[in-house]
Amino acid sequence: MAANETPVRGSNWKLKVAYDGSDFSGWQVQPDRATIQGELAAAIERVTGERVLPQGSGRTDAGVHARGQVASFVLAAPIPAENLRRALNRTLPESIRVLSAETAAPGFHARGSVKAKTYEYRIFRGEICPPWLARYAWARPGKLDVERMQGGALEVAGTHDFTSFAASDPDLATRREEDDEEAEGKGNVRTIFASDWREEGDLLVYRVRGDGFLHHMVRNLVGTFVDVGRGQLAPEDVARILEARSRSAAGATAPARGLFLENVEY
Amino acid sequence: MAANETPVRGSNWKLKVAYDGSDFSGWQVQPDRATIQGELAAAIERVTGERVLPQGSGRTDAGVHARGQVASFVLAAPIPAENLRRALNRTLPESIRVLSAETAAPGFHARGSVKAKTYEYRIFRGEICPPWLARYAWARPGKLDVERMQGGALEVAGTHDFTSFAASDPDLATRREEDDEEAEGKGNVRTIFASDWREEGDLLVYRVRGDGFLHHMVRNLVGTFVDVGRGQLAPEDVARILEARSRSAAGATAPARGLFLENVEY
Repeated sequence: MAANETPVRGSNWKLKVAYDGSDFSGWQVQPDRATIQGELAAAIERVTGERVLPQGSGRTDAGVHARGQVASFVLAAPIPAENLRRALNRTLPESIRVLSAETAAPGFHARGSVKAKTYEYRIFRGEICPPWLARYAWARPGKLDVERMQGGALEVAGTHDFTSFAASDPDLATRREEDDEEAEGKGNVRTIFASDWREEGDLLVYRVRGDGFLHHMVRNLVGTFVDVGRGQLAPEDVARILEARSRSAAGATAPARGLFLENVEY
Repeated sequence: MAANETPVRGSNWKLKVAYDGSDFSGWQVQPDRATIQGELAAAIERVTGERVLPQGSGRTDAGVHARGQVASFVLAAPIPAENLRRALNRTLPESIRVLSAETAAPGFHARGSVKAKTYEYRIFRGEICPPWLARYAWARPGKLDVERMQGGALEVAGTHDFTSFAASDPDLATRREEDDEEAEGKGNVRTIFASDWREEGDLLVYRVRGDGFLHHMVRNLVGTFVDVGRGQLAPEDVARILEARSRSAAGATAPARGLFLENVEY
């Protein structure tokens, strides 16, 4: 529908949201903690008087950022989309911004309808990380061979069982999935469409696009690629790690602060 | 002296420091408040066991950032410069980084020896300020005519009495000077060597270099240039405001978050 029309009662809403995750306990609402989902719900209630729980495309962890998270929810009362977006930005903390607001088909669900997601991970490899980058990159001085890392990154393109790169935290014993937990039939098999490292000055940036990601999967991949980059692993070892289907085969989990949810496709 | 030599006992030290001022109550040490000077003093004590109060080139306010603040202090014990720099960065919060450490002549004083300082001020003029820029720019959507602002900026180049742009806070009745309070003979007269606006995408950046700056002077200049940019004042009005020598003649004080102390020359 056109942006200047007022949606009907009971519209399904789709928001595109950017946030700095540094000062939040992740996406998911928790008692007595500041979370993105909680702040959004509170802002929607202040603006519309309606209590809803916006559903995200996935649950980002504490410290993880987003340039294009998507959230969906149903509002009983009609409100022009542009008014909703502006009013939310006026009441939200400046660390959370609604980039766009639009109505969606009744069947749309921010998590259930996902076709593909893209994440970026940033490593600052200079010796002194500027204070204004420290919240948005993993400061990791020391030599990293980007060509080797790219070789490792290419090994995960395609369809694989990513058990070796899934979170193994005891409290995640149910193998909580980060992104697509409704796709139950898939187990830990995911398809990666693109997986690439690039250099931007003192930053090394990993960009990965796939049909879904297990909990901690991107950060575990990055930790493993860093082992490849510093010569602890060969690029081909990444294929062997995938085959092992064991979290202990892969590298450490890279810090949350370097991770950005870039965009979600439907 | 060469970086690999160990300085003698009683050396005068010069540090170049970068910081994100968002979470600090400014430069100057205060009881029960986190300040840059306080964090540096505590870090120096943890590293060397010596209690010193590093003197800055000037006192930046709460929320103001620095890419090249300079601090000086005397240490009794000798320590290799590179070891001091690394040890300080290991113990300082990541929002404060020591970019370089070197010994200086005995007469060097970070504030008293200043020849020139450069500040930058950043305005984000897009409609939605990205969360990772919000701490480092004044988010000010709406039309601003940069050519007019540049016209206003040129009016302050040269030697002028900047009383109209000095802080008028009641608790600053003693006309506390931001940068060069030891230059007592100067009163409120300062010389501005360069004063320019430039565009960088959605950012408008003001860069000003001068022999010293009164308290709030850069932020008061920026607030006035914004009045010029939105058509409230003519560029030539800036000369009239200078002549008025009255704080009430100028525009509002721009927010601290957009201001960076870029570098200090000796």
